[in-house]
Amino acid sequence: MKSPFYKLLINFSILILTFNTSSSQVAKNSIVSKAYLNIAKAITDTAMSDCKAYSLLKELCYDIGPRLSSSPQAAAAVEWARQNMLTFGFDNVHLQPVMVPHWVRGEIEKASIINSSIVGTVSMSISALGGSISTPEMGIVAEVIEVRSLNEVKELGTKAEGKIIFYNRAMDSRLMNTFFGYGSAVDQRTLGAIEAAKAGAVAALVRSVTTRMDNVPHTGLMYYEENVHKIPAAAVSTVDAELLSKLIKLENQVKVWLRLSCKTYSDIQSYNVMGEITGIDRPEEVVLLGAHLDSWDVGHGAHDDGAGCVQTIEALRLIKILGLKPKRTIRAVLFMCEEFGIRGGPAYADSIKKNDPNHIAAIESDRGGFMPRGFSVSADSGTVERIKKWEYLLENIGANHIFQGGGGPDISPLNQFGTVTIGLIVDDQRYFDYHHSANDTFDKVNERELELGAVVMAILSYVLAMEGI
Amino acid sequence: MKSPFYKLLINFSILILTFNTSSSQVAKNSIVSKAYLNIAKAITDTAMSDCKAYSLLKELCYDIGPRLSSSPQAAAAVEWARQNMLTFGFDNVHLQPVMVPHWVRGEIEKASIINSSIVGTVSMSISALGGSISTPEMGIVAEVIEVRSLNEVKELGTKAEGKIIFYNRAMDSRLMNTFFGYGSAVDQRTLGAIEAAKAGAVAALVRSVTTRMDNVPHTGLMYYEENVHKIPAAAVSTVDAELLSKLIKLENQVKVWLRLSCKTYSDIQSYNVMGEITGIDRPEEVVLLGAHLDSWDVGHGAHDDGAGCVQTIEALRLIKILGLKPKRTIRAVLFMCEEFGIRGGPAYADSIKKNDPNHIAAIESDRGGFMPRGFSVSADSGTVERIKKWEYLLENIGANHIFQGGGGPDISPLNQFGTVTIGLIVDDQRYFDYHHSANDTFDKVNERELELGAVVMAILSYVLAMEGI
Repeated sequence: MKSPFYKLLINFSILILTFNTSSSQVAKNSIVSKAYLNIAKAITDTAMSDCKAYSLLKELCYDIGPRLSSSPQAAAAVEWARQNMLTFGFDNVHLQPVMVPHWVRGEIEKASIINSSIVGTVSMSISALGGSISTPEMGIVAEVIEVRSLNEVKELGTKAEGKIIFYNRAMDSRLMNTFFGYGSAVDQRTLGAIEAAKAGAVAALVRSVTTRMDNVPHTGLMYYEENVHKIPAAAVSTVDAELLSKLIKLENQVKVWLRLSCKTYSDIQSYNVMGEITGIDRPEEVVLLGAHLDSWDVGHGAHDDGAGCVQTIEALRLIKILGLKPKRTIRAVLFMCEEFGIRGGPAYADSIKKNDPNHIAAIESDRGGFMPRGFSVSADSGTVERIKKWEYLLENIGANHIFQGGGGPDISPLNQFGTVTIGLIVDDQRYFDYHHSANDTFDKVNERELELGAVVMAILSYVLAMEGI
Repeated sequence: MKSPFYKLLINFSILILTFNTSSSQVAKNSIVSKAYLNIAKAITDTAMSDCKAYSLLKELCYDIGPRLSSSPQAAAAVEWARQNMLTFGFDNVHLQPVMVPHWVRGEIEKASIINSSIVGTVSMSISALGGSISTPEMGIVAEVIEVRSLNEVKELGTKAEGKIIFYNRAMDSRLMNTFFGYGSAVDQRTLGAIEAAKAGAVAALVRSVTTRMDNVPHTGLMYYEENVHKIPAAAVSTVDAELLSKLIKLENQVKVWLRLSCKTYSDIQSYNVMGEITGIDRPEEVVLLGAHLDSWDVGHGAHDDGAGCVQTIEALRLIKILGLKPKRTIRAVLFMCEEFGIRGGPAYADSIKKNDPNHIAAIESDRGGFMPRGFSVSADSGTVERIKKWEYLLENIGANHIFQGGGGPDISPLNQFGTVTIGLIVDDQRYFDYHHSANDTFDKVNERELELGAVVMAILSYVLAMEGI
């Protein structure tokens, strides 16, 4: 952005777009499309010469750290986000109250195989699942039964009584979309304790839902069901899951000792953090950019979803420092409490209902700070086609793959208002190496990949705020 | 590959391809194209269920380590590669002699800013450039002049005499293709010492050619010119380059002490390692898969180019264990000495000349073990179009971007025989974080991304070995 010629080109581009207020059909190669190309290039060049997303993420990861919704660190993250939005000069920076669950892991979480004739007593790497109750103070000792599905537990009959159910179905590694691989196994984590309890089991262990074979357990939310006895549940590292499985095959009645000390308190108040660039022409019409500010209480929550948060802030900063004045409002919303049952998204949607603004689109980044590949659009195919016409602006980055698909958990409550919800799609091969684990740390994020995610969010949000859908 | 139905499908697909021996025009949706799709899926599923590339790379990185062409580790890597090719049952496994330069870094490489009134004496992170001579035993002390280009040195006139020239032009971070960014700065490293010596300088320091801002120097090859005085040259970490540049701006006559202890000996003999799946129909026609076995002497040479080596081996292994019998020969060649002046590639090409086989295509992986995106084809546009028709086989992986471009340094000598040379293209945003530095270690490689590179090499080489070009 140092060349005066370049500045001139941007200003000229803005001029063209100011005079073309109703270009619902922007033909490629038209003067308007070239103006948008100039702006996309300016956003990209500025971002790659003066990245801020990475240093923001470093602050969030190292100065604040993991930030479970109800934790002091989550409160720090709220204030950190608010101050940054003010520093960057966003309009209308404010907090929106959200009630969030208050669960703490507790200091003790331990598990051991205790009676193996082959390996003796072996401690296992475990992580209590989010929402789990604690065990009794001296823990639980019980024989372990291995299953591969919720249905297998149903078929166990009385055999499950008094036992620990060990869910050991791996992610399907053959699926190229690792989110589908995750979907192929995560029901064991979310619903495993319910089915195990129904069958009379005393605890549930779940193989970590990850593509890695290592010693790091991956936590995540679990559910209990009303009128079903609550039992404690924990994730086991893939290496220990493999060991346990082998021992069960080789020996009779492998027993495990499990000790968790989790506690659940009453819900507490936290906040969504928001700021915006108010539209100069139709300020009541909103294009939302969002991510979730909370994380799990292990690692840094760097990819999940610190990356999305700093990309959201950075996208608005880029639009702002280039002096771009969108016709419609571009709003950044950092949602509190996605991980622990999706509270911030619905709270935001409720507030919309009351104030009746028109949210034409919402773009969410919650798939990690990896190389952007495109956008997944939750809308009818005609709408998807209308958004696809902007693919040429994303071609230089290779993120020009716009297709019909899900938007994202925090913004999906906006679908009820006819908002087009859009998910940032990235190269996701590495995501489940880190997801919900101590491995999700700042050093796993690449500066350029992270920043390019912010760039494509800035480009798409700007053009939608200018042209509508 | 456990389902009998699936085995049946593959066998049926092979049967179809056996009966279609001259399908130069394979229409999409034809029975032949579906047979290839089945095989591509079988290769992918097998690879993702039973990855070997990652554990091979772990051996190469941890058991052998960095392997500069002339080093004992390079000899170990040759034997390691040969043994693995034999273990996996490749045909015609053998070594091909290559003479390689013998340069050693030596034990001492040190540099300090010694006379700053602001920071006093500060040591700098440096790495001798490959091929550099040593300094005198007590080092060189001289004033530093900062330049941004080779041309600037020419313009210095007598000012350069007795000085250390400090090349400090950064990679152009705005370029999406980081190899172009690398190309925008690397001339300072390769030719900097020559221009500095011509101007009368006593040494050259070069800003590391990397996208990172950190304290890790990035080495790489440098050249001397006949009849031009040789001076020592080293890379400086980007953090120290920034510091040195700031001090030069603030102070008069910043002096640096530089001590290198490199040595060059006579060339020694090393080897290219090769093995193949001999074609059952036209064994004399070859599709080559290749990478370079040597690396720099820092880090693990994990991405550069351990990744390419294990992908090459893995691609052949996948074809072999699926029982596929290509019509033409698919040959794996691990080239020795790419880094130190590209010796293995020309040696291989020379041997071809004598034996006169027909190499229809050569595919090289030397851009890091990142997510594959497609292939760059060095050929006329008609040929590129004929290879593009196989994009549908790579679509599932998102590596279906085949375009006209460079093949690769080791295989480019084959262009003289009319061989179509092809480079594996990957997401390269992270590559120059690691390239030629202590950061290029095993832990920087993701198992799935690495394996998928092997998968697309297997798919493309198999279909070219069946159908020709």
